[in-house]
Amino acid sequence: MSRFFSEKYRDLTPYTPGEQPKDTKYIKLNTNESPFPPSEKAIHWASHAAEKLQLYNDPTCYKLTGELAEILGVSSDMILLTNGSDEILNFAFMAFCDKQHPAAFPDITYGFYKVFAQLNGVPYTEIPLDESFNVRVEDYLDLGKTIFLANPNAPTGIALPLSDIERILRANPENVVVIDEAYVDFGAESAVKLIRKYDNLLVTQTFSKSRSLAGARLGFGVGSRALIQDLNTIKYSTNPYNVNSMTQAAGFGMLLDEERTKENCAAIQWNRKYTVRCLGSLDFHVLPSSANFVFAKHDSIGGKDLYLKLKQRGILIRHFETPRLKDYNRITIGTLEQMQTLIKQVREILEEIK
Amino acid sequence: MSRFFSEKYRDLTPYTPGEQPKDTKYIKLNTNESPFPPSEKAIHWASHAAEKLQLYNDPTCYKLTGELAEILGVSSDMILLTNGSDEILNFAFMAFCDKQHPAAFPDITYGFYKVFAQLNGVPYTEIPLDESFNVRVEDYLDLGKTIFLANPNAPTGIALPLSDIERILRANPENVVVIDEAYVDFGAESAVKLIRKYDNLLVTQTFSKSRSLAGARLGFGVGSRALIQDLNTIKYSTNPYNVNSMTQAAGFGMLLDEERTKENCAAIQWNRKYTVRCLGSLDFHVLPSSANFVFAKHDSIGGKDLYLKLKQRGILIRHFETPRLKDYNRITIGTLEQMQTLIKQVREILEEIK
Repeated sequence: MSRFFSEKYRDLTPYTPGEQPKDTKYIKLNTNESPFPPSEKAIHWASHAAEKLQLYNDPTCYKLTGELAEILGVSSDMILLTNGSDEILNFAFMAFCDKQHPAAFPDITYGFYKVFAQLNGVPYTEIPLDESFNVRVEDYLDLGKTIFLANPNAPTGIALPLSDIERILRANPENVVVIDEAYVDFGAESAVKLIRKYDNLLVTQTFSKSRSLAGARLGFGVGSRALIQDLNTIKYSTNPYNVNSMTQAAGFGMLLDEERTKENCAAIQWNRKYTVRCLGSLDFHVLPSSANFVFAKHDSIGGKDLYLKLKQRGILIRHFETPRLKDYNRITIGTLEQMQTLIKQVREILEEIK
Repeated sequence: MSRFFSEKYRDLTPYTPGEQPKDTKYIKLNTNESPFPPSEKAIHWASHAAEKLQLYNDPTCYKLTGELAEILGVSSDMILLTNGSDEILNFAFMAFCDKQHPAAFPDITYGFYKVFAQLNGVPYTEIPLDESFNVRVEDYLDLGKTIFLANPNAPTGIALPLSDIERILRANPENVVVIDEAYVDFGAESAVKLIRKYDNLLVTQTFSKSRSLAGARLGFGVGSRALIQDLNTIKYSTNPYNVNSMTQAAGFGMLLDEERTKENCAAIQWNRKYTVRCLGSLDFHVLPSSANFVFAKHDSIGGKDLYLKLKQRGILIRHFETPRLKDYNRITIGTLEQMQTLIKQVREILEEIK
């Protein structure tokens, strides 16, 4: 730390991204990436955009926003595209939280919410999940706080039914409720269809998971015109050209191939089913997942131990040191072949320690 | 504005980007873009990166940072790459300014400094340039404020000699001095060579201008290890994956072709000389520019009038409504052919109003 660093940020604990090994010898099941490459259309459009990089990108993302609006059944001014969904989440913390409007989110959820709260000097409450890692809806009624809920939740993978989300929206009419749907395409129901009904609802999504564009950084928020206008005020005061032209083009290319995205999601669901069944037969306890990962523990081996042993065998999964999570590991669902290799290695590890 | 928008940001006046016409019928001399396409190597590397977008980008930008460090003659941990240089500037306002460390910058300079100060709740002082639009160095000595200086300055194009910057650095040892070198490659002297001498110096640069990557969004800061560490704390608390993989690749490709960047800068300097001479012969008053634009006014026609007349004739230049600037226009230096067309059109407009 330099002697010039502002007092405001001296106690910040930054987010720790998942391991990104420089070599490629690992089967990467640790950062919830898609095992499927982007559509040829995305590659084509992005490469084409690369030829004209001397010109600024369109700060309004006009073309991509229009296409996305049509797919989602909303109008263009109800969408804001950002540099990954982390950016839209940070914008939401900036725009809709302050000392008078503290933030609230589950104690076990996407680790960045806490960091965003700290970064923006926003007081926050972490509301404990129940013993089975479920959101207790009653805890979120009449809260008087800006609520952040990942649906499905991470790293548990557990989804909340839309009826529960509606109860929360109705019971907090004076506060924004942010539903972070990074993993929604793998089996949960999207709250986008509620946008016109609740002016306090902001839904965020990303192209990083189901749309195979993690490396392009493309996320977005959907909400009422007024909410999106507020978020645009933040964007144009922060980084107007936030989504570069290649990423806009890649996103547009992916949207031209929605059929493929659906097929990829179906494949992940199938592979998840396979993985859950195999882990179950090896006596793992696996939480019911609606995401492209599963959260699992085993009575005979600690979470960290399994993580390290798999790493030695060339497979990366994600381990968290948090007390309530340390027995578990989060395992991304990859191709069927990758999951077969995982199961084989896990079986061998369990044999070894018998 | 929604009823949920935080009080903190209700009075924000966002930055207004230059016009980005949807059609391509204009000669664009309004946003200081390069008229030269990126290097084939940049296009090749970016296209290659597009094929692997399902994987997250490297949050450390390891490869690009290493290459850039070698070119700049610093070590990798003295550089932070960002989503355009707007992002590193915002990070600097966050990290090194607060109520105890207000910001100071010229009254006429990059319009975003004021917005960043407002966004971050930082008190700021705008220090008037002298009558010839020069920075008065004495005004910046023993300020007790975090100083932001664009060098060359925008929209004037006027550069400050390195000896003046050193005077300012020495006279403010307890405050960070940020030298924003977006346009430095077109004729000013970079302060990067002073980095090891002054621990209060942060230099920011961009790939948007001399390196033809405006649409890719790539900027960076260079400073002492401690300053860069602080800025990394902000980055990892905001958006760890801020520079997408295609942009990292495009930037790397450009660095493999530094010879070409130098040739392009030489061409711009030649075309600037031509433009200044022609505008001078048409009785324009042109400020001495070290950037890829000139700032010019004419006694017979108002700045806005000339801007509108040129727009009608298919040429976009940048007009500012600010009182001290409204007689002038900022004209980006493009290809020789573009500048010849500009001069021809300007001559005709001046004939018309005689």
